[in-house]
Amino acid sequence: MNKFISVNDVPDLAAMLNLVQDIKKDPFSKKKLGENKTLGLIFFNPSLRTRLSTQRAAINLGMNVMVMNVGTEGWALEFEDGAVMNGTKAEHVKEAAAVMSQYCDIIGLRSFPELKDRETDYSEKVFNKFVQYCTVPVVSLESATLHPLQSFADLLTIHEHKKKARPKVVLAWAPHVRALPQAVPNSFAQWMCAADVDFTIAHPEGMELDEKFTGGATIMHNLQEALLDADFVYVKNWSSYKDYGTPLLNADDWLLTEEKMKTTGQGYIMHCLPVRRNVELSDELLDGPRSLVIKQAENRMYTAQAVLQSILEELHANPNPLLWSERISSFYD
Amino acid sequence: MNKFISVNDVPDLAAMLNLVQDIKKDPFSKKKLGENKTLGLIFFNPSLRTRLSTQRAAINLGMNVMVMNVGTEGWALEFEDGAVMNGTKAEHVKEAAAVMSQYCDIIGLRSFPELKDRETDYSEKVFNKFVQYCTVPVVSLESATLHPLQSFADLLTIHEHKKKARPKVVLAWAPHVRALPQAVPNSFAQWMCAADVDFTIAHPEGMELDEKFTGGATIMHNLQEALLDADFVYVKNWSSYKDYGTPLLNADDWLLTEEKMKTTGQGYIMHCLPVRRNVELSDELLDGPRSLVIKQAENRMYTAQAVLQSILEELHANPNPLLWSERISSFYD
Amino acid sequence: MNKFISVNDVPDLAAMLNLVQDIKKDPFSKKKLGENKTLGLIFFNPSLRTRLSTQRAAINLGMNVMVMNVGTEGWALEFEDGAVMNGTKAEHVKEAAAVMSQYCDIIGLRSFPELKDRETDYSEKVFNKFVQYCTVPVVSLESATLHPLQSFADLLTIHEHKKKARPKVVLAWAPHVRALPQAVPNSFAQWMCAADVDFTIAHPEGMELDEKFTGGATIMHNLQEALLDADFVYVKNWSSYKDYGTPLLNADDWLLTEEKMKTTGQGYIMHCLPVRRNVELSDELLDGPRSLVIKQAENRMYTAQAVLQSILEELHANPNPLLWSERISSFYD
Repeated sequence: MNKFISVNDVPDLAAMLNLVQDIKKDPFSKKKLGENKTLGLIFFNPSLRTRLSTQRAAINLGMNVMVMNVGTEGWALEFEDGAVMNGTKAEHVKEAAAVMSQYCDIIGLRSFPELKDRETDYSEKVFNKFVQYCTVPVVSLESATLHPLQSFADLLTIHEHKKKARPKVVLAWAPHVRALPQAVPNSFAQWMCAADVDFTIAHPEGMELDEKFTGGATIMHNLQEALLDADFVYVKNWSSYKDYGTPLLNADDWLLTEEKMKTTGQGYIMHCLPVRRNVELSDELLDGPRSLVIKQAENRMYTAQAVLQSILEELHANPNPLLWSERISSFYD
Repeated sequence: MNKFISVNDVPDLAAMLNLVQDIKKDPFSKKKLGENKTLGLIFFNPSLRTRLSTQRAAINLGMNVMVMNVGTEGWALEFEDGAVMNGTKAEHVKEAAAVMSQYCDIIGLRSFPELKDRETDYSEKVFNKFVQYCTVPVVSLESATLHPLQSFADLLTIHEHKKKARPKVVLAWAPHVRALPQAVPNSFAQWMCAADVDFTIAHPEGMELDEKFTGGATIMHNLQEALLDADFVYVKNWSSYKDYGTPLLNADDWLLTEEKMKTTGQGYIMHCLPVRRNVELSDELLDGPRSLVIKQAENRMYTAQAVLQSILEELHANPNPLLWSERISSFYD
Repeated sequence: MNKFISVNDVPDLAAMLNLVQDIKKDPFSKKKLGENKTLGLIFFNPSLRTRLSTQRAAINLGMNVMVMNVGTEGWALEFEDGAVMNGTKAEHVKEAAAVMSQYCDIIGLRSFPELKDRETDYSEKVFNKFVQYCTVPVVSLESATLHPLQSFADLLTIHEHKKKARPKVVLAWAPHVRALPQAVPNSFAQWMCAADVDFTIAHPEGMELDEKFTGGATIMHNLQEALLDADFVYVKNWSSYKDYGTPLLNADDWLLTEEKMKTTGQGYIMHCLPVRRNVELSDELLDGPRSLVIKQAENRMYTAQAVLQSILEELHANPNPLLWSERISSFYD
């Protein structure tokens, strides 16, 4: 694997699931693999779970980690080609990405959408520009439209808890107090459609996701009907894709409760966290025995480790007669 | 040791002092102990000495360290049970603590008091809620009411410099320009009362500390009388416990000077730092030969190392037939 | 080497260039040298390249690194002797520097000028006070008036690309939208004057640098004339030294373009980054084959490694019969 930006970068999902289960049994067995390799984690937006889980994953592999919070520690970047940079932006992404590639063997990058202009966000302008000028493998720590490390952990959690070969998985829209990106639900849908599950998305009318990620899913607008016989219910808010970035407020009837879960046949509850208790999900569900949310978070570490291990193996397999510095420069040639 | 939140977590003070003196002689002798173990340092409030000394202590033990400044890098946490989270708080401590426990083997936590409501601060609500939902050992990096890593370093410094078996130690209130927590003096009093010293607290009337920490101490309101024959003078400001959080201003006569120290019989000067020069203590004392303030700071590293070593030894002693991930989840069961 | 604050700390430039070229061939050959040594990187001002390159250099040497952003993570320091600290400054540099020296084996420090009072900045008050109270070797990560790690990387880049024994190097002033320090051009001039190059500085009248750094350079006010037959053109903005801290605005005719470079005989383009595209330098030059800017950035890592290696070797050579803690305290005795 030479990058991890969406499910499409995974050549074989089943093999990846096997790999991560081996890693869970012995997380430190590949510490030689990361020796003398450094992971740079670049955050244009804040992070808790993703930062700590990915950092720990790299540590388990024997890598060193350098964390850079660009917002607070760095400076504003210019992304436009040909810009006359006489404003507040101090550096062009061309230099920033190329320079960071000199110091890191793998770069993890987080860049949220602005939720103002759909075309800009969905072109993944910031993320793609950065990747374009990086000369080392890039791992998405959540981009404007996708969050593949989260979805991989979600798939693993389902894989570990499913009681039938092809479980019913429901992605259930939930209320929230502010406008959230579509990255998590887009990505979850993309991974579920790639995996062998019976996949339903339940959301209020008008909250459709981009069809490019939901092909193969059953779409329903009645939450209670969607939940029938569900094995896994993945709860998540998102703002509108159609009326781009607008939050749907006053939708309290979409709060998921124990009462609504009764028709699911003991379905598990999932959420990517952070979760707004008693707004998205009731306390009773989150604190109850069928909540998988902490296990999902734990799996973030092991799935990130599987991704980094796969990339490190490719870096090692690529024979390197050149100087280390020259190898990096020619990685994408 | 499976946590370090107050002096009560130390089963044997004399044994701990012996351990830290062994560590000082050879700080790197236990590097195998921390192998594959990660310390998470979580700061709700900023830190310099505590962060660097604890980070270095962990490094000396072969641990990896992940630092998270929650204020600037993370988000506001909810601490109320049953809250409907429709405000600005993005995550409940239940999830935050449980999730961080997945990625760390030991967690260090700093959380200052708000100095608004005494009951809230003295119930250690933030700290205790966090510990409650952590599933790994927790080390206090200073809580609302105590700072045990500082006090341990203070005790070691006294132990190393005392010239008689039972030295006279004076905790002397000092002026400051703003309202400070009582955590350092509370904790120092608690440790001095647990150790074998002749302990006096000198403060202006009305600046009494919580009696639960000062039992066994002699309380005096005349600084000069208190200093008589003192072997160690620990200088520290705190705001009022009675009139909670109110600073005592215009108390310049409590500034400690060489002149006032004359009756002490060459007593040593101590301060936890940062110190306001010529407000709390005069330059001549801080720059003079009897100042131990830099040695106290140095001892922060070795005492933190003794605490982490004791916790690591318990983690290793605890036989672990389960998967690593399962052991963590069951640590407090 | 026991500090690295200017070119004057390098006993033999040619030997240092040889060392760094050995390092580039095998960056991990000295990993034992940094074992059990910790580098503290203290930033009073933000950093991207310097932080990441120096951190990676230390990692390559087997060191541990602790990064402290004093602005956002710490507190304001007092630098005046004898100050009555009743204002907003929470700690005196005397304590801060002495304390950090307890936890680190080498300290890297960044402190920008205020560009308000020339005498204050050019006395390097902040930097020198810090160094004065440090008890371990200090590496400048850019001070008010110099940036030696940058200049060393610049010299290496010239050394690697020169086609004649004594190349012509031109430092060309360039426009910018705000007032920048003189640290990079001062330092570049100091290193070029110490090395064996034909060195010209081109700037608008009134933008003279401090003569103490430019002795030996040819000064010209006509950019086009200065560029004639240049082998290397180092582009950089700075604010006025004479009319201290004032930026020279509306000087678009100093923007460097392909057209202006025609008389140089295929001269290379250099810049320390970050660069304002199409304000300082045109896109065509930055994206063209003669741009060395990314190679300069890469060389930052290797030159920092040479500096750290030289300091580590001195730390090891200095026999140490004392306790580790005592050795540190006595380093500058």
